[in-house]
Amino acid sequence: MKRRDFIKKAGISGLAAGAVAAPAIVKADTKLKWKMVTTWPKNFPVLGTGANLLAESITEMTDGRINVKVYGAGELVPAFEVFDAVSRGTAEMGHGAAYYWKGKIEEAQFFSTVPFGLNSQEMTAWLYHGGGMELWEETYAPFGVLPAAGGNTTVQMAGWFNREINSVEDLNGLKMRIPGLGGEVLKRAGGTPVNLPGGELFTSLKTGAIDATEWIGPYNDLAFGLYKAAKYYYYPGWHEPGTTLEAIINKKAFDGLSKDLQSIVRNACKMVNQEMSTEYTAKNNAALVTLVNDHKVDLRKLPDNAIAKLKVLSEDVVSELAGKNKAAKKIYASYDKFRKQVMAWHEISEKIYFNVRG
Amino acid sequence: MKRRDFIKKAGISGLAAGAVAAPAIVKADTKLKWKMVTTWPKNFPVLGTGANLLAESITEMTDGRINVKVYGAGELVPAFEVFDAVSRGTAEMGHGAAYYWKGKIEEAQFFSTVPFGLNSQEMTAWLYHGGGMELWEETYAPFGVLPAAGGNTTVQMAGWFNREINSVEDLNGLKMRIPGLGGEVLKRAGGTPVNLPGGELFTSLKTGAIDATEWIGPYNDLAFGLYKAAKYYYYPGWHEPGTTLEAIINKKAFDGLSKDLQSIVRNACKMVNQEMSTEYTAKNNAALVTLVNDHKVDLRKLPDNAIAKLKVLSEDVVSELAGKNKAAKKIYASYDKFRKQVMAWHEISEKIYFNVRG
Repeated sequence: MKRRDFIKKAGISGLAAGAVAAPAIVKADTKLKWKMVTTWPKNFPVLGTGANLLAESITEMTDGRINVKVYGAGELVPAFEVFDAVSRGTAEMGHGAAYYWKGKIEEAQFFSTVPFGLNSQEMTAWLYHGGGMELWEETYAPFGVLPAAGGNTTVQMAGWFNREINSVEDLNGLKMRIPGLGGEVLKRAGGTPVNLPGGELFTSLKTGAIDATEWIGPYNDLAFGLYKAAKYYYYPGWHEPGTTLEAIINKKAFDGLSKDLQSIVRNACKMVNQEMSTEYTAKNNAALVTLVNDHKVDLRKLPDNAIAKLKVLSEDVVSELAGKNKAAKKIYASYDKFRKQVMAWHEISEKIYFNVRG
Repeated sequence: MKRRDFIKKAGISGLAAGAVAAPAIVKADTKLKWKMVTTWPKNFPVLGTGANLLAESITEMTDGRINVKVYGAGELVPAFEVFDAVSRGTAEMGHGAAYYWKGKIEEAQFFSTVPFGLNSQEMTAWLYHGGGMELWEETYAPFGVLPAAGGNTTVQMAGWFNREINSVEDLNGLKMRIPGLGGEVLKRAGGTPVNLPGGELFTSLKTGAIDATEWIGPYNDLAFGLYKAAKYYYYPGWHEPGTTLEAIINKKAFDGLSKDLQSIVRNACKMVNQEMSTEYTAKNNAALVTLVNDHKVDLRKLPDNAIAKLKVLSEDVVSELAGKNKAAKKIYASYDKFRKQVMAWHEISEKIYFNVRG
């Protein structure tokens, strides 16, 4: 279904759209004050500062006709209530990640990341040029929320471990902070996934309350000082190979904008998607040098048989998610078709290039 | 040097900047008509349509305060005069690639692509978060031109061959259309590089005037019908691993804009950089299926010893370019430092992920 048709239909059938009668289109001289609630601590490196950049860019490009103010997690609403706040119009925008809403919309997880799934380049290609965005809009339409890709972590690290992983058996009984689909996969490999907020990782790891934790990648992990609490730093981040962050917009607020302002909001999200992902690319590589040279971090690759086992288990977990409901099945069909095709192309382009470059 | 300082200095010392006295700032109600000249045939898939998208987005986001009209190659000025046209203000914007100006600015090649150099993600990261953009602005400042990354081809294909390449010796005497640094590398491997415009590739290959040609990747190559003129389709595109396309802006015209319009122009370029690169990602993979399944194209990997030889020769060619002048040396130092660091990071993230995913 084309976006235009979709928006038209959503206008008729959407739950929240019922509230929209004839939206007053904002004139060029109107000044709007918008709130952006986020799932990140205020000014958190890349995640929070990227949300700030999105807000500032909209304010700047509109010359203050939309003035966007950013709220960190808990400032206006708690992190995990960002989606609801945007849905009911408490805030006009939000910044977070789609897998945080899995309790409400299980299939939303496909729009953030999937174990052994698409990397950052592939996710953005699927969303904007492979049909993914239309499905994402359809998924959020009943809540009166418009989604956009608003950043990407790129391939993450597997995490910080105080137990050596020399074979798949070593995952057995491993108590690890790893949320979402990755956590479910670890559970099936015999581990014990736990969920903890970022602020508790260091102490939990240091005191032995957990054996391991994943977080993001060198840049954010260095800032948390995790190297002081764990012996080994494992790669690669099989569980989050290119997590798409999301910018969400209250549909009623968006519909009330003139076309130029709508275009600015949409393009600002695309701009920040690239900015955040390439900021990670640049900053992770510099942070890795610091971790290895200054902090003598012991970098390890997960053993092949552990990765092979996790891959098989991931396929089960993702297939089961796809079977949960009709919408999940439809999204998975699109995602999986794109994944197979892009893997064949990257086999002879991006992947082989990395391998021949050395 | 910070961008702000740089712009200030360029305003004093730049050749073209002498013409700018006190630019009249464009008010919110002024309507400007801007021309965008391009090096691409009008509406050429991705390259030309991407330039169209950039123009349309600026027009839409500014609500017509800047109305940008796109001219294909030869419509207003020939392809290779795009840079000069923007420099002298015949057009306010241009879209092309930096290596086209090597006759005028040899070191500009670092801002498009380098054999065995950065891929698309890494190029954008170097430019916007690794110091590359400041150097690019410095390079174009004497011409009164502001650069921006305005698209990326992602990893290209090595090309279409009517001669089997089974070892490095088979490159000897190979007559191949391959421009720029890649052509120089082929020459040192014993081949004969020739330069031909895209429109002549099919016939030259078909008649045997050339033994091989590189072009872009499956999507553009399929449209040119090159599979009907060559026996083998080789990979990977060692010579163009992530060619950054460029959007250039006449500095005087840019300086005359109000801050909101400046922000729109700059952010539109970033948006289109992501759009074009991910459009290639999505369309190349679908075109590859057509080439292989419908047209039975014989896909081949360049032999390892040929790649190894090309890599050694590429290092020579790139080092020599870096030694041409002081500016080239400074740019190469930044590029090469970023390349080494990002390669170490991608070794344990993007690259290893591709390899473990299968």
